[in-house]
Amino acid sequence: MQIVKTIAEVRRLVSTVRQEGKRIGFVPTMGALHNGHVSLMKTARKQCDYVVVSIFVNPTQFGPSEDFEKYPRNLDSDAITCRKTGVDLVFAPSVKDMYPRENWTWVEVENLTKSLCGAHRPGHFRGVTTVCTKLFNIVDSDMAFFGQKDAQQAIVIRRMMADLHLPLEIVICPTVRESDGLAVSSRNQYLKPTERKDASLLYHALTICEDLARKGENRVKVLIAAMQQVLGRSVAIEPEYIQIVDLDTLEPLETIDRPALVALAARLGTTRLIDNIILDLNVSSGDV
Amino acid sequence: MQIVKTIAEVRRLVSTVRQEGKRIGFVPTMGALHNGHVSLMKTARKQCDYVVVSIFVNPTQFGPSEDFEKYPRNLDSDAITCRKTGVDLVFAPSVKDMYPRENWTWVEVENLTKSLCGAHRPGHFRGVTTVCTKLFNIVDSDMAFFGQKDAQQAIVIRRMMADLHLPLEIVICPTVRESDGLAVSSRNQYLKPTERKDASLLYHALTICEDLARKGENRVKVLIAAMQQVLGRSVAIEPEYIQIVDLDTLEPLETIDRPALVALAARLGTTRLIDNIILDLNVSSGDV
Repeated sequence: MQIVKTIAEVRRLVSTVRQEGKRIGFVPTMGALHNGHVSLMKTARKQCDYVVVSIFVNPTQFGPSEDFEKYPRNLDSDAITCRKTGVDLVFAPSVKDMYPRENWTWVEVENLTKSLCGAHRPGHFRGVTTVCTKLFNIVDSDMAFFGQKDAQQAIVIRRMMADLHLPLEIVICPTVRESDGLAVSSRNQYLKPTERKDASLLYHALTICEDLARKGENRVKVLIAAMQQVLGRSVAIEPEYIQIVDLDTLEPLETIDRPALVALAARLGTTRLIDNIILDLNVSSGDV
Repeated sequence: MQIVKTIAEVRRLVSTVRQEGKRIGFVPTMGALHNGHVSLMKTARKQCDYVVVSIFVNPTQFGPSEDFEKYPRNLDSDAITCRKTGVDLVFAPSVKDMYPRENWTWVEVENLTKSLCGAHRPGHFRGVTTVCTKLFNIVDSDMAFFGQKDAQQAIVIRRMMADLHLPLEIVICPTVRESDGLAVSSRNQYLKPTERKDASLLYHALTICEDLARKGENRVKVLIAAMQQVLGRSVAIEPEYIQIVDLDTLEPLETIDRPALVALAARLGTTRLIDNIILDLNVSSGDV
């Protein structure tokens, strides 16, 4: 496994591999790698001949009051994780490499970025789509792998890819969870022990919603109230949003009459967590 | 020479050529090909092994009151021009190919798009940068060729390319002019005979500006007044803007103390024409 820091070097290596006719898979990350990332890498490993992982904490997707500074960074242990998982190339650029001058060019996806996290993190998705475009242009992969845990991000990127005719296949992989259901996240390590315990209620609320829906409850108001009640069991949980939206357009639904995304965000102390499930009552619940 | 209409077909052909190790040049156009385009194609022909020309009248760069509907379209004669000039591949997609669904993803360049034409054609450059990103992603060339006549467009695209790390070299080629100095443009054919005659004053004004600057006049106000006077000789010319701006940032200058773009736009009847020169008093005047 190689670890490179410069754009020129990653381009050179990938171009050599491409000339050998190999299929290239790409997993963009912000590091602090956990089992969710490992699952993406393993999927990439299965579907591609050469796997690139980028590790870059992207400043433009953090708001001014967000955790850019304290976001966990540990390239050494991340590199060990990548090596163990069979990654071929780790690309770990500096901010100066990715933003060599004041950034004037932005890629924005309308409509999909207004609701859910977009409503609470202004500019966040613009930062995500812009840095992903840069990374896709640099890494030049055939496929890119994203986790369903960040469902809105995955849906936004998939739309960007289609609209801009990016020659890239986006694969969305299932959320990986701890044994109590909590979605694995780099931010879970911020949680205090009591917060960590209560955090499992997030997924519990989602499963309650799914159960009710499968039993025939299709009124969104009722389903959201049931989830609010579950989260209300912990005084540590401050819900930011609990929403049920159209899976393609992310527009709010009143009735579950089509494939839906049930998504929530909450604060536990200073930590912001998100989670979601997909409700597609015509098929078993699955990936985005 | 091949003429293809589908994205899949252009991808297939370019990918085959790329595997042969050939250098691919791309000239994006809206058709109505004239000597300016021919000059771009010839430059591409010299610098590359395989030359692709796209012909696509892009709806998203026209304002609601602009000339999208009446913009000249003649694929047959354009194809003859391309064949004569040694083009290898003409890509002529439909609007439905380039915009297969409602377009939600936009590429925007800040700052550079606010002044000059950007101030008078809201949304124009967003349409240009978005369609160029699509075309670059489809054609996958090594180089792309633009004319200095559309100087702001070329500067905006060059910045977009750098900010997004597009693996592409942008080449800006000198403006081609008629014998009386008028910059060749697909829109010149809209001009009535008397308008056509007066249109040469646009370039004449620019040359007067350059003469004065070379003689030591560096006050922008004085230079602009001199150009206004030249345009004032025709009652048919309605100036839209006459500006002298920093060549890199496109910010207005008060004094010519660095490389500058002298740019103007004017209406003659219903026809809008633009032209520009570069003033770099440390070197002979040249390309962007």
